[in-house]
Amino acid sequence: MMRIGIVDTTFARFDMGRAAIDELMTHATDIKAVRRTVPGVKDLPVACKLLIEREGCEMVMALGMPGPEPIDKMCAHEASTGLIQTQLMTNTHIIEVFVHADEAESQEELAKLAEKRTREHAYNVFLLLKHPERLTEMAGTGQRQGWKDEGPLGKGDLKRAKGKGVGKVGQDAAKHGSAEAKTATAVDGVVHRG
Amino acid sequence: MMRIGIVDTTFARFDMGRAAIDELMTHATDIKAVRRTVPGVKDLPVACKLLIEREGCEMVMALGMPGPEPIDKMCAHEASTGLIQTQLMTNTHIIEVFVHADEAESQEELAKLAEKRTREHAYNVFLLLKHPERLTEMAGTGQRQGWKDEGPLGKGDLKRAKGKGVGKVGQDAAKHGSAEAKTATAVDGVVHRG
Amino acid sequence: MMRIGIVDTTFARFDMGRAAIDELMTHATDIKAVRRTVPGVKDLPVACKLLIEREGCEMVMALGMPGPEPIDKMCAHEASTGLIQTQLMTNTHIIEVFVHADEAESQEELAKLAEKRTREHAYNVFLLLKHPERLTEMAGTGQRQGWKDEGPLGKGDLKRAKGKGVGKVGQDAAKHGSAEAKTATAVDGVVHRG
Amino acid sequence: MMRIGIVDTTFARFDMGRAAIDELMTHATDIKAVRRTVPGVKDLPVACKLLIEREGCEMVMALGMPGPEPIDKMCAHEASTGLIQTQLMTNTHIIEVFVHADEAESQEELAKLAEKRTREHAYNVFLLLKHPERLTEMAGTGQRQGWKDEGPLGKGDLKRAKGKGVGKVGQDAAKHGSAEAKTATAVDGVVHRG
Amino acid sequence: MMRIGIVDTTFARFDMGRAAIDELMTHATDIKAVRRTVPGVKDLPVACKLLIEREGCEMVMALGMPGPEPIDKMCAHEASTGLIQTQLMTNTHIIEVFVHADEAESQEELAKLAEKRTREHAYNVFLLLKHPERLTEMAGTGQRQGWKDEGPLGKGDLKRAKGKGVGKVGQDAAKHGSAEAKTATAVDGVVHRG
Repeated sequence: MMRIGIVDTTFARFDMGRAAIDELMTHATDIKAVRRTVPGVKDLPVACKLLIEREGCEMVMALGMPGPEPIDKMCAHEASTGLIQTQLMTNTHIIEVFVHADEAESQEELAKLAEKRTREHAYNVFLLLKHPERLTEMAGTGQRQGWKDEGPLGKGDLKRAKGKGVGKVGQDAAKHGSAEAKTATAVDGVVHRG
Repeated sequence: MMRIGIVDTTFARFDMGRAAIDELMTHATDIKAVRRTVPGVKDLPVACKLLIEREGCEMVMALGMPGPEPIDKMCAHEASTGLIQTQLMTNTHIIEVFVHADEAESQEELAKLAEKRTREHAYNVFLLLKHPERLTEMAGTGQRQGWKDEGPLGKGDLKRAKGKGVGKVGQDAAKHGSAEAKTATAVDGVVHRG
Repeated sequence: MMRIGIVDTTFARFDMGRAAIDELMTHATDIKAVRRTVPGVKDLPVACKLLIEREGCEMVMALGMPGPEPIDKMCAHEASTGLIQTQLMTNTHIIEVFVHADEAESQEELAKLAEKRTREHAYNVFLLLKHPERLTEMAGTGQRQGWKDEGPLGKGDLKRAKGKGVGKVGQDAAKHGSAEAKTATAVDGVVHRG
Repeated sequence: MMRIGIVDTTFARFDMGRAAIDELMTHATDIKAVRRTVPGVKDLPVACKLLIEREGCEMVMALGMPGPEPIDKMCAHEASTGLIQTQLMTNTHIIEVFVHADEAESQEELAKLAEKRTREHAYNVFLLLKHPERLTEMAGTGQRQGWKDEGPLGKGDLKRAKGKGVGKVGQDAAKHGSAEAKTATAVDGVVHRG
Repeated sequence: MMRIGIVDTTFARFDMGRAAIDELMTHATDIKAVRRTVPGVKDLPVACKLLIEREGCEMVMALGMPGPEPIDKMCAHEASTGLIQTQLMTNTHIIEVFVHADEAESQEELAKLAEKRTREHAYNVFLLLKHPERLTEMAGTGQRQGWKDEGPLGKGDLKRAKGKGVGKVGQDAAKHGSAEAKTATAVDGVVHRG
């Protein structure tokens, strides 16, 4: 059994931990989720570190919903900095999933975003652990977790049209299953010459 | 006896250390508080580290009241960054309780906020140490220390109505005692499948 | 003899190192000051670390006068971050005394502020080393180094009235001597129950 | 065979990894590229560290395309900070290639910029590894990756004229080959006197 | 022979490395300069670390010319943070010399500033290594590298008059030689009492 850490917060307004665990379970039967909950995002880094060093987790998801004020943005920044530092200290990936309170206008929309982003990043965790080559197949394809993917650069200007609620559901197995077909730019994990 | 570090500042305008110790004592009879006071928030990180490494504290509360100016915000940011770093160096939780001078309009209100936030975070420390599963029961429920909780996302827009002074008192044992009942989203600390 | 490090800069426009040493000498006869001078505030962290690790200093004062421009503020921020990191690497307090060029309007006032703040923080160093319990007696009492203390929160609004030059002189032994009488909120360094 | 790590993201909208590998192969026949792809730029630091410590890479390229929003800029800042930290922890150069979504106005232009910058930095990696003295020959010559070089300071004002699309193509072997001729300011790698 | 590291960039538009080496050679005959050049300022930290740890340099100069855009300022900030971290990891001074593209209005002026600042900081390196007591003699005297010194605080307001081009030339041996006479505030490197 691979152990995956899941850390979320009581500050968040959506049960991101449950969504993460549920999604992970959809993709793998040999994963054990170890869950912890802390008060806020600034408590995430050390909680992740403890899951890695004391609970033997091979990867961790750090889940949070920073508030909309400047002070909340600063907290998120401090947390993110700490999460990167934690990864470097442990040589372990921590996938951060932050949903900012000002990313949506209604509570329903924010909840939906939180669920989608969490699920899509749980799938990323699955890929990083089990099928890293599939991520390379998706390199440069403008993946967006929670929103509609932007896709690889094509023609036209760069005005960003956030695909709010445009039918991108994390549970959509079809999408995940067909990830390989998404791009023709695949390059082997290891390339050499000479 | 579990040892809990309490560090506060002479810069603060409210005796946060006393409130923290008083609240901790309400919840546990086997906790010994070890208190230190430093000049300002930037002195907190090393003081916390010393309490962990030389005084055997298993968790620490870092208490401060940053001023209202941009330079004060920057000090708080530096302190927070240092506190996260300290946690990672010691594998120990430090619960930061910062009350910003511009969070209230009157001195009375600020004092009340400082007391409530400190007490509610002291309760978080108690939970982290003794009942971490209760925090998971509260995951995603929009807990706010000092202000009225926002609750889980429901319906309607996201305009934030700060519940200033709306009857949320840290000492309210009833609230704490009924935390388990607050949400139906509880997930076991460890979940596995397969 | 306890060794205290004093590091200041050639960038500063006031001889903060001399003021710090002079004040320290006023309070203790068994302290040896070890002084270093570096070009600017960003050179302070490693200079402090060297004083701690190679010169056996038990505490250090890092003294600087950042300029008034945004780039100067950024330098100060980087220096502060480094000073906190240094403390965590050495388990040693470094008391930072920064006087910003835009804190006063005239050169005379800025010089006076630099001297007062330096002296009052030198006294903090003395307390941290010799009488840490006195700092706890001052917890939450709104101490301000260089400016008039704000005092504990009382009644009224929070408009900040900087007490510029309002008769707060660092050398005022009376003030220091009567610190114990300042507040009734004293809590023992170690409190326990049960 | 020298091993060079290449890490890019699924967030990017251009296959930077492929361009980097292709360019490296143009310059050296004894380099093996080891490629990894992560979700976003904040996942780059630990991925680079793993390539250095577990895959024996002697240098790494970290490739990303941060979005145009303030939150994206903050992510890029956090990633950059982590990449510098990674280099210091491993004593290994990581050449960061970030192309910001707001650096161009059309998708075509952004794609072209991403390709040019990636290729020119791949060439920098080649020089750092094999011909560091050639970089010293270019010291102070205002090299810009992706845009037209600014050149050494000459006469006139400093208004920056971004040389968008002004015939600077990464693949331009002529440019690379004649790098030595570019400046007369060459100084030996080691200079001494006395 | 003392070894001094000199690291500059191809991004810079002035050959700062050459100026630094030339100035160092003016002051000492027993110094060997070891020069490296990297693409941009974010590559400086690890290059400095390698010079210290693998080339035995006792001090390093990190030279760069960040561009005028917000993104350039951020790069400089990240580089500075990394340079401080490098110093703390190696217990070695790294003197950062950054000249920002928006510090001057014409190219000629910027080149002159880059040369002066580099030379004056090279002299600082010489003093730190050989005559640290002379820096203490200059403590609090408002030294500015590249611009006219501001001098110690005197009378009048604090409006900053940047002494652009006001006859302060790095090569001015007279200035350097008479540094001792500059201030009467000298305090011995070590002061003690009792």
